[in-house]
Amino acid sequence: MNKIDILETFENQYPERNYKIIHTAPEFTSVCPKTGQPDFATIILEYIPDKLCIELKSLKLYYNSFRNDGIFYENVTNKILEDLVTVCKPRFMKIVANFNVRGGISSEIIAEYKK
Amino acid sequence: MNKIDILETFENQYPERNYKIIHTAPEFTSVCPKTGQPDFATIILEYIPDKLCIELKSLKLYYNSFRNDGIFYENVTNKILEDLVTVCKPRFMKIVANFNVRGGISSEIIAEYKK
Amino acid sequence: MNKIDILETFENQYPERNYKIIHTAPEFTSVCPKTGQPDFATIILEYIPDKLCIELKSLKLYYNSFRNDGIFYENVTNKILEDLVTVCKPRFMKIVANFNVRGGISSEIIAEYKK
Amino acid sequence: MNKIDILETFENQYPERNYKIIHTAPEFTSVCPKTGQPDFATIILEYIPDKLCIELKSLKLYYNSFRNDGIFYENVTNKILEDLVTVCKPRFMKIVANFNVRGGISSEIIAEYKK
Amino acid sequence: MNKIDILETFENQYPERNYKIIHTAPEFTSVCPKTGQPDFATIILEYIPDKLCIELKSLKLYYNSFRNDGIFYENVTNKILEDLVTVCKPRFMKIVANFNVRGGISSEIIAEYKK
Amino acid sequence: MNKIDILETFENQYPERNYKIIHTAPEFTSVCPKTGQPDFATIILEYIPDKLCIELKSLKLYYNSFRNDGIFYENVTNKILEDLVTVCKPRFMKIVANFNVRGGISSEIIAEYKK
Amino acid sequence: MNKIDILETFENQYPERNYKIIHTAPEFTSVCPKTGQPDFATIILEYIPDKLCIELKSLKLYYNSFRNDGIFYENVTNKILEDLVTVCKPRFMKIVANFNVRGGISSEIIAEYKK
Amino acid sequence: MNKIDILETFENQYPERNYKIIHTAPEFTSVCPKTGQPDFATIILEYIPDKLCIELKSLKLYYNSFRNDGIFYENVTNKILEDLVTVCKPRFMKIVANFNVRGGISSEIIAEYKK
Amino acid sequence: MNKIDILETFENQYPERNYKIIHTAPEFTSVCPKTGQPDFATIILEYIPDKLCIELKSLKLYYNSFRNDGIFYENVTNKILEDLVTVCKPRFMKIVANFNVRGGISSEIIAEYKK
Amino acid sequence: MNKIDILETFENQYPERNYKIIHTAPEFTSVCPKTGQPDFATIILEYIPDKLCIELKSLKLYYNSFRNDGIFYENVTNKILEDLVTVCKPRFMKIVANFNVRGGISSEIIAEYKK
Repeated sequence: MNKIDILETFENQYPERNYKIIHTAPEFTSVCPKTGQPDFATIILEYIPDKLCIELKSLKLYYNSFRNDGIFYENVTNKILEDLVTVCKPRFMKIVANFNVRGGISSEIIAEYKK
Repeated sequence: MNKIDILETFENQYPERNYKIIHTAPEFTSVCPKTGQPDFATIILEYIPDKLCIELKSLKLYYNSFRNDGIFYENVTNKILEDLVTVCKPRFMKIVANFNVRGGISSEIIAEYKK
Repeated sequence: MNKIDILETFENQYPERNYKIIHTAPEFTSVCPKTGQPDFATIILEYIPDKLCIELKSLKLYYNSFRNDGIFYENVTNKILEDLVTVCKPRFMKIVANFNVRGGISSEIIAEYKK
Repeated sequence: MNKIDILETFENQYPERNYKIIHTAPEFTSVCPKTGQPDFATIILEYIPDKLCIELKSLKLYYNSFRNDGIFYENVTNKILEDLVTVCKPRFMKIVANFNVRGGISSEIIAEYKK
Repeated sequence: MNKIDILETFENQYPERNYKIIHTAPEFTSVCPKTGQPDFATIILEYIPDKLCIELKSLKLYYNSFRNDGIFYENVTNKILEDLVTVCKPRFMKIVANFNVRGGISSEIIAEYKK
Repeated sequence: MNKIDILETFENQYPERNYKIIHTAPEFTSVCPKTGQPDFATIILEYIPDKLCIELKSLKLYYNSFRNDGIFYENVTNKILEDLVTVCKPRFMKIVANFNVRGGISSEIIAEYKK
Repeated sequence: MNKIDILETFENQYPERNYKIIHTAPEFTSVCPKTGQPDFATIILEYIPDKLCIELKSLKLYYNSFRNDGIFYENVTNKILEDLVTVCKPRFMKIVANFNVRGGISSEIIAEYKK
Repeated sequence: MNKIDILETFENQYPERNYKIIHTAPEFTSVCPKTGQPDFATIILEYIPDKLCIELKSLKLYYNSFRNDGIFYENVTNKILEDLVTVCKPRFMKIVANFNVRGGISSEIIAEYKK
Repeated sequence: MNKIDILETFENQYPERNYKIIHTAPEFTSVCPKTGQPDFATIILEYIPDKLCIELKSLKLYYNSFRNDGIFYENVTNKILEDLVTVCKPRFMKIVANFNVRGGISSEIIAEYKK
Repeated sequence: MNKIDILETFENQYPERNYKIIHTAPEFTSVCPKTGQPDFATIILEYIPDKLCIELKSLKLYYNSFRNDGIFYENVTNKILEDLVTVCKPRFMKIVANFNVRGGISSEIIAEYKK
């Protein structure tokens, strides 16, 4: 199954107003493509919906689908942004990914989309 | 009784000044319409009064009235904003609703009204 | 004795510069006019002095003078602002009053004055 | 349905060892029998299992069953202890209930059972 | 009215068990008998009830009755212990009083009673 | 490969002294056998070595080997204890496993071994 | 004037009870006898009074009297203990002195007296 | 010796870039000119150097030179700003002075200089 | 080997978007050129990549290469900025270096580059 | 020069009393003998002196002497304990070494000596 097909949406009941939705997921994990060791991150999704909102349980399953994928920090952050923009077509969206310490260094990647 | 009729106001004694009032309620609870399980949130109400201020005890009772209602995060936030704007006709109002972790994800909804 | 007469000032030694003074008083208490029960707040006073600065000990005594007064959150905040502006004629002044939880809700009132 | 019937158990796989299980539930809510207003608490359950462990989802549903019950702090704490002891017959059990501020006072009740 | 007469009790429903009750009151205030200036403290009451429990609202009113009394730290702590022991005859009781900074020094007084 | 074979040890250089070693691993993840959803925990290993110490990198790989296993909280804690005792034969060992919130409840399991 | 003569006492009103008094002073400063540079510490005084209690304002002045004294960490802690024991003859006394970082190392000295 | 003569500077190696230097000194102490009692503050110095940087050890000695001076909060903050501007001629400089609680009130003074 | 040659880059997969990368390294250490004593800092690197991203392991090795270098706070911050700009040619880059307390004063240096 | 020769002592002025001295050093660094990468730890030294106290500056230099040594966690902790016991012959001594996260795991080693 294509990863993006996991995501579900529902109709925004208040499209006349620009309001913000923030979902914070501290249990994201994927695998480092170089070492094969697991990576851990908190993913913060912030967006202003247009006609569609992202369904919360499908978001969790979408995040879980990265569990055994080998993917770099910068790429996972941008891919999540692109998938979510494709599916829910928001007015604004931002992804903040905070990765745990590796080699004594923690990392944060921040990517935004504006309609 | 209609939910909005619980809310009471009193006259703003300082209408010539734009000042801000913030009420933070960490004990909000409603019910998830999908699972029937309780949801818990902190509701932060911030507004600049015009002629009327919201009476604090009636605000508590209004929040309590959601206790057994089945309602989604996005909708409860926007409904509270609309009810409070209807009743106190402020110059500015913002609702921030911080919902507890569900499925490993916490959520925040932020909606604003400007006269 | 009139409450405002408690306040004393001293001459600003650096009137040519716009600098900021912040006094934070976490021990403010007054009485709720509806229930007769005590209220507790932290009062943050922030101002840019013009010719006069507020003397710190007199400020403490002025705050203490509210100890047995019955007065609402919104009114006490605006009254403190007006008394202090009258006495020290600042270029800018802001009062932030953080009231403790009552009925499960904490409250903050923020009022500003600009010359 | 009797409240105690909600609770389910499963067989302890390691009965030869005295080990400790702690479940912390920060979303407990009941109703004050005097005022009819909601109370909120964190319930910490700590026990050493004998032959049976408490099933986590049934524990959540058991806690949720108090949502609209009118019951005092001291009684709810002791009742939870007695119900859980009846159902899982542990070697040791402790209930700590931390109730939110009411009238400027927060309360904690701690009750223990030893075989 | 005698200060001790403000305190009310109710019957302990679980006298066969030694369980602990802790009430934390961060809004205690009295007056320094030397300077006439207000003192502020958090009073932590911890006890094991015998036949009687202390009613929470009457405890709040009892604490409030010290608001304009001039009394030293050591004395207020021991007096509260003695009044509460007299009224509820507990198996064990402890009072911890944390007083705010005065002259750059904060103070804590701890007194216990055992039957 | 058998999970226990991942673990490596090295010779304790100071066997004449009872000293304590604590390894805290906040990135443990396994899978709930009922729901198939991932669980997350911090595993704290505390032990007094006898002749052997546990090699740190092999411990990490051992923990990682649970990544896609379906196993209950109580069982994973006791299994880790038994595997580590088998491999390093310590004088004392304790496992504390703190699991993230599920259904509004967080859980901690504590198991000990003494020679 | 002799440093010890600064200290004043008052009569303990509750000598029949062993209760504890703790005074925490985060603004202690003296001078390093080797470098001439200022040292800073928090001094925690804990004691069980017998017939006498230490007067709080005199304690502050006593601490202030070290301001320009050159004295080592270990000595200042033991000297304060000895002076206070001499003056108030307590049943028990403990001094904890937490010194700020010097050369990347912070220090704590703990000394006790028992009658 | 004149207080300002204690301060030393060194040549800025990167004058072509506007970069910021912040030195935070939590161990500042002077004396209250009214009461003769010591005051304690954290002094935060923030500046953009032009041709000169302030030498760190001389800054510490300069701060130490206020140890036995009687000087008001507002004046010490502005004096430090003027002395440091005189000596290092920065493009921008800000002094934030956070004074400890006195009479239940803490104070912060913030003064800025722009070329 | 030249310090800058340690740094490696990889191709930015999303050059059409301005996104931010932040690497926080709390284990930086160098040596004070005046005293020969070690300095400790947290280095925060924040940048918007153009065609190249900085490889994380090489960044760690680059930081480690300062371990036994004698270099001043201001210079190490600016040198790191210049080396990283040279190697990865970003659209924007900022270095924040937080140095531990020395002589009672902590220091922060902030330098930026814009294309 | 032998590492132990760096350590200096001075005579304990209060040998008749069992008092405790704690020195906390958050800037310890050594090198991993397997990977050659730097390790970082906080070393807490706690002891009851007999006739000798450890001189603080020499302790710092002793810790610094490990900067480029390759040595395992368990060994460095026990070696520091043995060197310090040899030099100052205390009545009691404890070393707690908290090592930073490596491979997602932080480690603490605790070793004690009793006369």
